Amino acid sequence: MFNKLKLDDIRALERIAPTRVLTQAQINEDYFHDELGTAFGVPEALVKVLTTAEVSQVLKYAYEHDLPVVTRGSGTGLVGGAVATSGGIMIDTSLMKKVLDFDQSNLTVTVEAGMLLMELAAYCDQRGYQYCPDPGEKSATIGGNISTNAGGMRAVKYGVTRDAVRALTAVLPNGEIIKVGSKVVKNSSGYDLKDLIIGSEGTLAIVTQATLKIIPKPEYAISILVPFATMSQAISTVPKIIGAKVTPVAIEYMSCDTILFAEEYLGKKFPTHASDAYLLMTFDSNTQEAAISDMHTIADLCLEEGALDVLLIDTEERSASVWSARGAFLEAIKSSTDQMDECDVVVPRSAVADFILYTHEVARTVSMRIPSFGHAGDGNLHVYICRDKADDETWQDKKSKAFSMMYAKARELGGLVSGEHGIGLAKKEYLASTLGDTQIQLMKAIKRAFDPKGILNPGKVI
Amino acid sequence: MFNKLKLDDIRALERIAPTRVLTQAQINEDYFHDELGTAFGVPEALVKVLTTAEVSQVLKYAYEHDLPVVTRGSGTGLVGGAVATSGGIMIDTSLMKKVLDFDQSNLTVTVEAGMLLMELAAYCDQRGYQYCPDPGEKSATIGGNISTNAGGMRAVKYGVTRDAVRALTAVLPNGEIIKVGSKVVKNSSGYDLKDLIIGSEGTLAIVTQATLKIIPKPEYAISILVPFATMSQAISTVPKIIGAKVTPVAIEYMSCDTILFAEEYLGKKFPTHASDAYLLMTFDSNTQEAAISDMHTIADLCLEEGALDVLLIDTEERSASVWSARGAFLEAIKSSTDQMDECDVVVPRSAVADFILYTHEVARTVSMRIPSFGHAGDGNLHVYICRDKADDETWQDKKSKAFSMMYAKARELGGLVSGEHGIGLAKKEYLASTLGDTQIQLMKAIKRAFDPKGILNPGKVI
Repeated sequence: MFNKLKLDDIRALERIAPTRVLTQAQINEDYFHDELGTAFGVPEALVKVLTTAEVSQVLKYAYEHDLPVVTRGSGTGLVGGAVATSGGIMIDTSLMKKVLDFDQSNLTVTVEAGMLLMELAAYCDQRGYQYCPDPGEKSATIGGNISTNAGGMRAVKYGVTRDAVRALTAVLPNGEIIKVGSKVVKNSSGYDLKDLIIGSEGTLAIVTQATLKIIPKPEYAISILVPFATMSQAISTVPKIIGAKVTPVAIEYMSCDTILFAEEYLGKKFPTHASDAYLLMTFDSNTQEAAISDMHTIADLCLEEGALDVLLIDTEERSASVWSARGAFLEAIKSSTDQMDECDVVVPRSAVADFILYTHEVARTVSMRIPSFGHAGDGNLHVYICRDKADDETWQDKKSKAFSMMYAKARELGGLVSGEHGIGLAKKEYLASTLGDTQIQLMKAIKRAFDPKGILNPGKVI
Repeated sequence: MFNKLKLDDIRALERIAPTRVLTQAQINEDYFHDELGTAFGVPEALVKVLTTAEVSQVLKYAYEHDLPVVTRGSGTGLVGGAVATSGGIMIDTSLMKKVLDFDQSNLTVTVEAGMLLMELAAYCDQRGYQYCPDPGEKSATIGGNISTNAGGMRAVKYGVTRDAVRALTAVLPNGEIIKVGSKVVKNSSGYDLKDLIIGSEGTLAIVTQATLKIIPKPEYAISILVPFATMSQAISTVPKIIGAKVTPVAIEYMSCDTILFAEEYLGKKFPTHASDAYLLMTFDSNTQEAAISDMHTIADLCLEEGALDVLLIDTEERSASVWSARGAFLEAIKSSTDQMDECDVVVPRSAVADFILYTHEVARTVSMRIPSFGHAGDGNLHVYICRDKADDETWQDKKSKAFSMMYAKARELGGLVSGEHGIGLAKKEYLASTLGDTQIQLMKAIKRAFDPKGILNPGKVI
């Protein structure tokens, strides 16, 4: 159905993006997979774009010549979303990282899609503002964050990427450029194309610019680490925290084994090993008293619920050790095994403990290590199935069995397939079984509405 | 293209909803128009549904027999969205008002679509919780609020209806029932059907149930009324308030003439006539000190910016007089004229003053009264063109000219057609000219993806 690229096509792309088209051996192997490497594909041409107009021209050409196109930011995805599994053209947005507008009156910043999350954070921070979403992978691009609707640690208080996007510039498969949304904060003007494009993993349009909400940076933040005797006790405290009229910025769950991986990976000690289960929470405010008062309210609540202790993370050193451990969990678990795959389910907050206990049962059933950690405050868990020394057949077999069990359980608990990593290639069958045929057919019809030739990131999501 | 209802069709509907199908003279004339009455249409049958299953059966029948269907809640819309302009079946959801689930662990309430906003507010309030969106029209249904993504007074701090919807049960045009979203707070599981249905004004699916986010009700709230010498001074203070690290719940703008209408309409005195332009703001918190401290910060800021005074709305009586006036603006302006039409533009906060000044210019150009008030905190203005004694031709002429000027100005300022009232029938041409053909064609393709026969609320939005 798609054409393979011919020399004429390469020449045409070179006219659009002179000196920025790579082919064959010029393309680094890093571009053949993403962070987890569960999907593999070799693009026939890699185009390092600089402008929305270039993206438009590349798409117009691809559309006219039936060439598949996949978009890639930093390649930090975990589900194969940015892998060229159909060959074709890969558009690399990583050179598009300009700040186009910084608007203090309307509290927005407009950036190009290739800007890294850490670059945006630093840019805002230097000016006394905060871009609220805070996904763990700071070297992801904003475009990538938008494509999967990434969540991150501050979602409990500030919401996810979707909540921070006011407007997008995006290129449709036929090369037409649209601007959806605006700097406005309310909008009831026709169908919500903006939210449809957010989270569509580059299958409906290519996002090239985003206008993002920012807030004046809160003046004070304080974190506590709270050990509990058991996971169930820790997790069952979370809905009580959420209901306590204090909204922590973050409520993260971590288990002792995950902490040990992080210590080994980072070569740094964590402040405590006293217990098997921890909640890590942050409180922010514009007054120190308010942040501390909120912290005390929740510390007291945790102690009433049986917490073993409350450790104040009040020094630079302690804060660095705790948050760097939290930030390194994925890499630490990854380094503990030859290969791994992940399950990014989201369940109602009240069902998190049930789900984690079930992952232990799955681990016993398939005889594999399945460590997990997660955003307990919003029910989003990151669960890792470790291959360790299993041979290929065993690995595929057990992984498939474990995934099927876990996604079925999530569905039973009122949960969904992905909280923030998306569907890509790796989770397609689980999305289909969770949502059912009617919704999948509806999504396919929407895909055809945007992309009648199906050239954009073919085979992904649905 | 559509069939007219025959006796067989009426009989079939009566089998689905026994004793709840009305035809011809049985249908009250109120059902022929909405609150503003700018569109008119007579349904051939009115079906007062009780369950999602009934809605499904009605739609399945309508789909198979090519009958148009329009959904109506309380009929409080302002743009003709819920008017049966193609005849056919009108589904009245107003009997569907059960609370299906109240979940304190996950902070959600699940209700049927016909529940009134004021009923939901009272239900939550009695239990110590708050449903955050607070549109002015309290007798609207939740289904209606979802269909236009209504905003309301608390949007500055708490967001709009969209931000409060966690999950929806909706019926597709062919009668299939889908559940989109869940109680979870993060979701990256395929295309965002939930947000596509929200704000689609009953053209893509009929919402029958909604799972809504609630919060523990803030303990304290305090309001201030701040007179300024001029509108420009009042409005230009708003971005400074937004940037001041204090988030008011509401920032409402009102002019002296609007207040006078409300006084006359309500027969109640407003606390002050000292000035031509006012900001009305509310602050809430779980501690009285925090609410008062926030209020002082903003009161000081307003005085620095030239406010003439700061009136504390600290008694029940004063609060009732101010907020009842604010709540009555629409009705008060309506009662001051034979007929009126409205413009619900939303512009970036920084452009609100420019837009209001422009409405004064438009009023002079077309020689009509154009009073306005609005949600200054989020750039959403409600502007009313009053017919007064104009004859029909003059009225249509001048209204059309005034609208064209105002929507063009909004577009120029980076704004959009509707902040919260939707497009319906009345604003279609302005949506088309604001978004341009590419986006309208995309929306039409999405409409076909949901509703290939076009039976749901035909002729609305796009």
